[in-house]
Amino acid sequence: MRDKIEKWFKNFQERLTADLETCDGKATFKADQWERPGGGGGEARVIQNGAVFEKGGVNFSAVEGELPEAAAKALHLPDPHFFATGVSVVMHPENPHVPITHMNVRYFEAGNGEAWFGGGIDLTPIYVNKEQVTFFHQALKTTCDRFQPTYYPEFKKWADDYFYIPHRAETRGVGGIFFDRLTATPEISLEERFAFVQAVADTFAPTYTAIANQNRNLPYTEQEKAWQLTRRGRYVEFNLVNDRGTKFGLETNGRTESILMSLPPLASWEYNLIPAEGSAEAAALACFQKGIDWVNQ
Amino acid sequence: MRDKIEKWFKNFQERLTADLETCDGKATFKADQWERPGGGGGEARVIQNGAVFEKGGVNFSAVEGELPEAAAKALHLPDPHFFATGVSVVMHPENPHVPITHMNVRYFEAGNGEAWFGGGIDLTPIYVNKEQVTFFHQALKTTCDRFQPTYYPEFKKWADDYFYIPHRAETRGVGGIFFDRLTATPEISLEERFAFVQAVADTFAPTYTAIANQNRNLPYTEQEKAWQLTRRGRYVEFNLVNDRGTKFGLETNGRTESILMSLPPLASWEYNLIPAEGSAEAAALACFQKGIDWVNQ
Repeated sequence: MRDKIEKWFKNFQERLTADLETCDGKATFKADQWERPGGGGGEARVIQNGAVFEKGGVNFSAVEGELPEAAAKALHLPDPHFFATGVSVVMHPENPHVPITHMNVRYFEAGNGEAWFGGGIDLTPIYVNKEQVTFFHQALKTTCDRFQPTYYPEFKKWADDYFYIPHRAETRGVGGIFFDRLTATPEISLEERFAFVQAVADTFAPTYTAIANQNRNLPYTEQEKAWQLTRRGRYVEFNLVNDRGTKFGLETNGRTESILMSLPPLASWEYNLIPAEGSAEAAALACFQKGIDWVNQ
Repeated sequence: MRDKIEKWFKNFQERLTADLETCDGKATFKADQWERPGGGGGEARVIQNGAVFEKGGVNFSAVEGELPEAAAKALHLPDPHFFATGVSVVMHPENPHVPITHMNVRYFEAGNGEAWFGGGIDLTPIYVNKEQVTFFHQALKTTCDRFQPTYYPEFKKWADDYFYIPHRAETRGVGGIFFDRLTATPEISLEERFAFVQAVADTFAPTYTAIANQNRNLPYTEQEKAWQLTRRGRYVEFNLVNDRGTKFGLETNGRTESILMSLPPLASWEYNLIPAEGSAEAAALACFQKGIDWVNQ
């Protein structure tokens, strides 16, 4: 099972980078293989200065070894041995009308034999095109509904809660789905969990590139670019202050450049920037809240 | 005592912003008063788009109330009531030859009657002029030596350890001094601690502006500006991932815009950027390590 999953993830990285290169049309991914001193390794693939993507990464890893005590405790694992494999993606487009996006699929095996899947997809628009957000959430819901009727509502809420920045009282973007520790249950086998994760992974490229292709040639102003840099600043805040995945990676001596490839090529912080009432920026900000029903808006 | 300290700090903010405005020569600080829902408040002063300072802040606060349980526990305080006052400064110059700097002086009173001072000054050059770094450390040492011969070596090492980014295996810059929980002891009264903190505060402006004035008109290239944005990225990483002060502020529901005024106006993250051997950037990087004896280099 472990081998099968690892191979599927590695192949998914191949297919996804090809799809994103086709979308970009100009730049290609550069690959960087690395080994983890404690066991295993991975392949970072990074695209920079493309026609659509100013910076983006599609990382594959398959690592094993022993978790530091604090990390094992945080996961409620009595035995520190682990195996983990996954693909992690963050894309930072150059045009502020093309949303930032993140996706991740992962598989974890603990030393005590427990095994589970986790993952998710979420969207961080700079300006919010509500029809496109509905299209995005509907695509996720359609995939979820093929497996369990509870998946979409549960995992959509999970994403709202996870991608939240308490010190800003804002969500990072318009959410998506997030799930973790999907183990086998009496009703759902690990194979079925895997089939769901595969379906989530395969939903990503067609859904995201459809939105990117609709917006990639929209003209934009300096003010719109400035708002993008500000929102990228929030993205940095979330990833460095709030994201448990980043924290876990840094604390378990993961490869820093792979973990932090999620950070934007350029970001800004202006003191106390509050968008003018009635502006497109204020309208976007109003969408960065939990609990918005994007499918039935 | 509490009143006397608070008044001195508020007046120090006045004097310091005046000194920094004189140094800048173009922009002025804008003041922003705020109240803390739990008790107390402060005044943020921010300068933007100056001749020297692209962005900087000099914040005064005097707050009181009850610490959240986790924060009280982290400080080993049985009683959550507290009073805290201080001034916090971060300056981000526009010219990559003028170092970023940070300084902070603070006084804390716990509910059980314990009282202490903390603070420090540190320098984050983008390119390292070693003579200037020695001048900077010598100025701190001279001030420290007026009080206790142990202060400089102890607080210099504390700064090396505090301003360290484990996931980069780098210090934030060339350090300075850092100290915390300087309580009254049988040998040193709280008044003497306060006199030391006042002397540290008053060392900041003449020392830092001397360096800023030497370098402010140095020409710089696009490559040097790019290296500045990368180093500012590291500054963001330290402040959001490693800085206990920022963490404390965000977790105790401090005023986010005041806490995060330390973040730079613009920062960048390029994937796996490694300076070329023998370059000025590589030479700078070699200085961002613990344990360098800058006074006797």
